[in-house]
Amino acid sequence: MKLISGGVTAPKGFSASGIYAGIKKKRKDMALVYSDIPAKGAGTFTTNVVKAAPVLWDIKLTRESDNIQAIVINSGVANACTGEEGNKNNFIMAETVANELKLPVNAVYTASTGVIGKQLPIEIIKNGIPGLVKELDSSIKAGTIAAEAIMTTDTYSKECAVSCNIGGKEITIGGMAKGSGMIHPNMATLICVVTTDASISKELLQEALSEDVKYTFNMISVDRDTSTNDSLLILANGKAGNEEITEKNEDYHTFCKALNTVTTKLAKMIAADGEGATKLIEVTVKGAGSREEAAALSKSIISSNLVKAAVFGNDANWGRILCAMGYSGVDFNPYTVDLVIESEDGSLQLVKDGMATDYSEKTATKILSAKEVKAIADMKQGTAFATAWGCDLSYDYVRINADYRS
Amino acid sequence: MKLISGGVTAPKGFSASGIYAGIKKKRKDMALVYSDIPAKGAGTFTTNVVKAAPVLWDIKLTRESDNIQAIVINSGVANACTGEEGNKNNFIMAETVANELKLPVNAVYTASTGVIGKQLPIEIIKNGIPGLVKELDSSIKAGTIAAEAIMTTDTYSKECAVSCNIGGKEITIGGMAKGSGMIHPNMATLICVVTTDASISKELLQEALSEDVKYTFNMISVDRDTSTNDSLLILANGKAGNEEITEKNEDYHTFCKALNTVTTKLAKMIAADGEGATKLIEVTVKGAGSREEAAALSKSIISSNLVKAAVFGNDANWGRILCAMGYSGVDFNPYTVDLVIESEDGSLQLVKDGMATDYSEKTATKILSAKEVKAIADMKQGTAFATAWGCDLSYDYVRINADYRS
Repeated sequence: MKLISGGVTAPKGFSASGIYAGIKKKRKDMALVYSDIPAKGAGTFTTNVVKAAPVLWDIKLTRESDNIQAIVINSGVANACTGEEGNKNNFIMAETVANELKLPVNAVYTASTGVIGKQLPIEIIKNGIPGLVKELDSSIKAGTIAAEAIMTTDTYSKECAVSCNIGGKEITIGGMAKGSGMIHPNMATLICVVTTDASISKELLQEALSEDVKYTFNMISVDRDTSTNDSLLILANGKAGNEEITEKNEDYHTFCKALNTVTTKLAKMIAADGEGATKLIEVTVKGAGSREEAAALSKSIISSNLVKAAVFGNDANWGRILCAMGYSGVDFNPYTVDLVIESEDGSLQLVKDGMATDYSEKTATKILSAKEVKAIADMKQGTAFATAWGCDLSYDYVRINADYRS
Repeated sequence: MKLISGGVTAPKGFSASGIYAGIKKKRKDMALVYSDIPAKGAGTFTTNVVKAAPVLWDIKLTRESDNIQAIVINSGVANACTGEEGNKNNFIMAETVANELKLPVNAVYTASTGVIGKQLPIEIIKNGIPGLVKELDSSIKAGTIAAEAIMTTDTYSKECAVSCNIGGKEITIGGMAKGSGMIHPNMATLICVVTTDASISKELLQEALSEDVKYTFNMISVDRDTSTNDSLLILANGKAGNEEITEKNEDYHTFCKALNTVTTKLAKMIAADGEGATKLIEVTVKGAGSREEAAALSKSIISSNLVKAAVFGNDANWGRILCAMGYSGVDFNPYTVDLVIESEDGSLQLVKDGMATDYSEKTATKILSAKEVKAIADMKQGTAFATAWGCDLSYDYVRINADYRS
């Protein structure tokens, strides 16, 4: 398996586009991803009871439609808490794309991201779609433009791609995602599109995706707010020509590994670009009784405002890490826990058996001052481990969210 | 029932003191509350797996000791994650107080608040205790001094008292508390001491307290971090001379109502003085299917970073409120929810049946600019209700917590 350049247009048969339609004040605000032949579609979606109109639409399509060929996305307005009018506007968005591309409407996934509670400016969207379709292009650059068009408060676009060999054929998986606030995924993230030219059954595509998010997108947090619009969508068009994956054989596991590389990379990019973030925090909990417990512990640490504020201040206030583990819902003996922090500037053990080592605060501050900081907690109670990603809590998080709409 | 001045020294037979022993750099750091006759003791404590040494001690005493007569508290160091040495130091603190007051050691509750992971400076504490005992005084002012001595990042001390008639006798309940970070109580808050001269059995005292915290201290959040040191302690010395309350009769309910007035007032003071807070947010969810659901919904709203940051910015971003309700774990129909905001500057309906009304953003901003802001969500699905209290998320929360230890 190797990392290659590009994103959603890296696999064979996919094209993309991004335009400025006029929903937002200045930046690009609509994107389209298109497979030139029908593809299998799968998705994972927010568990929030309040689900945006496009989420409801995509859940229905994932269940009912065997062929998906396009994904249309707008940024600026989330189309959540918009009632029947919201559902109608969402349908018009899908239908307009379907008409332009000469597809049935149930071949078009939709996604929206932005302010909750406002209706889509549907005329602007309808007027934008012909241009969006006209701009469709299979170049790497077109994928990047699409990744830019789905950004909200993101400071950079997020895409990546890998290729690997399945049954003698080179298959490619590419993806794009956006963050960067209201991030505490509970099935997926807000919003990620993955494309692949691999041939795989719809059932296994869904299963691979559902299993994958547990330890990728579901292991990141920016602010503990699970969004109304979380959607992770994947299209597999089979153009690589491999024999269709219909059982959990070696091909399936190779596919899962490649998918995991793409989703992990995108998840980390979202965490690192969390609203106001100055650094990426990676927390690994090892030596746990089960992977679920390791995941709950690491995610609790990554979600703590107090831990995040301390990391922002380069302060090795490890008591807050043990405190966050303590309210994670996992039962454990605090007096077997070891804790190490790490970055490109070194490694330092802060805690041994639940109590402070005689570490140097100066060294700790130096390690925490790096752009990527790791914390590794060893429970010494088993062999399971899990990793979660988040970011620090800065003044800019407050600034961005105190006047998001103005 | 009437509000009276004072705090822990308001009830008959209680005295208190607060001194600067030298644990902190400048401010007072030790407090003592004393009943001149043996009292019944009860408490509720953090559910965090990582429990501070004084919490473990108080849990044991609450179970085993029938007579409590003193509560000694230090601020500056939490005595959490301190192992056997921490337990030993905690015992020495209780024992030194017991010796000075000529009490058995198991008549002395302890509490500590401050940095996690540091050992208590036990010599400083031992040297401080004789002065602390000498300063004991039953005046209102002595109660206030004790309330000041337990503060950490609090900007003001918190105390209140009420009196009421039980069986022809005037009984009094007084209390003091400290906040103001690591506040997401899950049994109590960090730290509250309540005193009363009412006569009540130990069992009913504990039951009254345990029931009370569910809708008082457990309904506030500053930063979603449940502390290692949460302790709510109550002493009842019977000096009011009422017939002992031993069953759930009218006297019991009068007692509970008076207790609730004290704890609600203290809980709101803690929320309003949350780290960096510029305003108190009160959220009531009504028309819910059950009180538990109303509590989960209102607490989810009050805990959302995005809601808190929007209120800091006086931005009526109500979509974040519905989003927070949506991930509370409660199932509901978003399209029956109404939402009103209120303050001394007016009242405004933002949402009807899950969607925006045609409200004026200017009016909304004016209402949100007050020092106390209310949001009332009506689920229109039942008759239950609950109220939660929190505060906004400001730059100062980040500043305070980025360099708490320095």
